[in-house]
Amino acid sequence: MRSDEEHTEKMKKIKSARDRIMEERQGEKGLIVVHTGPGKGKSSSAFGMVIRAIAHEMPCAVVQFIKGGRETGERKLLTTHFSHLCQFHTMGEGFTWETQDRARDIAAAQAGWDKAKELIRDPAIRLVLLDEINIALRNDYLDIAEVCAFLQGEKPEMTHVILTGRNAKPELIEIADLVTEMEVVKHPWRAGIKAQPGIEF
Amino acid sequence: MRSDEEHTEKMKKIKSARDRIMEERQGEKGLIVVHTGPGKGKSSSAFGMVIRAIAHEMPCAVVQFIKGGRETGERKLLTTHFSHLCQFHTMGEGFTWETQDRARDIAAAQAGWDKAKELIRDPAIRLVLLDEINIALRNDYLDIAEVCAFLQGEKPEMTHVILTGRNAKPELIEIADLVTEMEVVKHPWRAGIKAQPGIEF
Repeated sequence: MRSDEEHTEKMKKIKSARDRIMEERQGEKGLIVVHTGPGKGKSSSAFGMVIRAIAHEMPCAVVQFIKGGRETGERKLLTTHFSHLCQFHTMGEGFTWETQDRARDIAAAQAGWDKAKELIRDPAIRLVLLDEINIALRNDYLDIAEVCAFLQGEKPEMTHVILTGRNAKPELIEIADLVTEMEVVKHPWRAGIKAQPGIEF
Repeated sequence: MRSDEEHTEKMKKIKSARDRIMEERQGEKGLIVVHTGPGKGKSSSAFGMVIRAIAHEMPCAVVQFIKGGRETGERKLLTTHFSHLCQFHTMGEGFTWETQDRARDIAAAQAGWDKAKELIRDPAIRLVLLDEINIALRNDYLDIAEVCAFLQGEKPEMTHVILTGRNAKPELIEIADLVTEMEVVKHPWRAGIKAQPGIEF
């Protein structure tokens, strides 16, 4: 263990390095944020960011591209308490392995994307979450080139857009500002524990 | 691109595999959840889970082991709107590289852990978030063996405990049920963009 003097010295160094970095970082801009990878936390941290935005009274919007049959906690809470600050759109049934109807899946994804474009174009909306859109892109229900071109060309300067879902396409990662990969270290499903309220939904 | 028939076939297979897995997973129990790694989303996804729990009307509690000077969106929102369902404790100044006083840091971490034990022991509280506790453990402000023994021995069966912060200790990962590592793929700070409301706080 370090002595108290060494500790103080080390903390001083950390503080001065951090202060210097903070001074250099003056830029502010709307970010293209991607949460991908097989681990948990892609959607929940995106919803955490929506909650932060709401707390700062930044108007925001959510488009859900996959919808299970189950009502999620986040949808219930956002639509019950914060509908004045956060629009919530779940596109039709969404598409999932439950529907098994490709034409309907493509139509649902496209309707979601049309709504997403409308929300992103509105400069009053400061943060738009496109939840599980990576699944639609992965299945080629949406055209990755069109999505990237829109985000680069038409997203207002100060608007944040968060795109979640595993297997994010390389083209999207290329144009994104902030990309996090959630890795599974341990998962309780492997031990026979089912999805539980508060944890998975 | 797959033909529609191939697609339907594939989706059928996914659905039946998934249905089978869901049938097998009947267990329900309180989980020890760890969010670690250098990437973004450790705390925001934990707060997303707190929000889910609140939406399901599960009483919960947050202990913050690091406190910057800045009021965070999540604290503001939880204390303003949901104080009936979620207790929020920030221990003193918390400890950071800002304090540069080891004795005070250890006292703050220990006070946080004492509060954490009291909250976890209360079976009415269904989810307890120990935000950034891994930093206190990493700096040996708290004893990892004591923390692990308490979680294994005294946590009520149905209570979820979430522990966040980079550099989670191997002993903690060993006893956890669900561990996610957030990896940085791209970070805008590297491009000179500062921390922004809705994204980082």
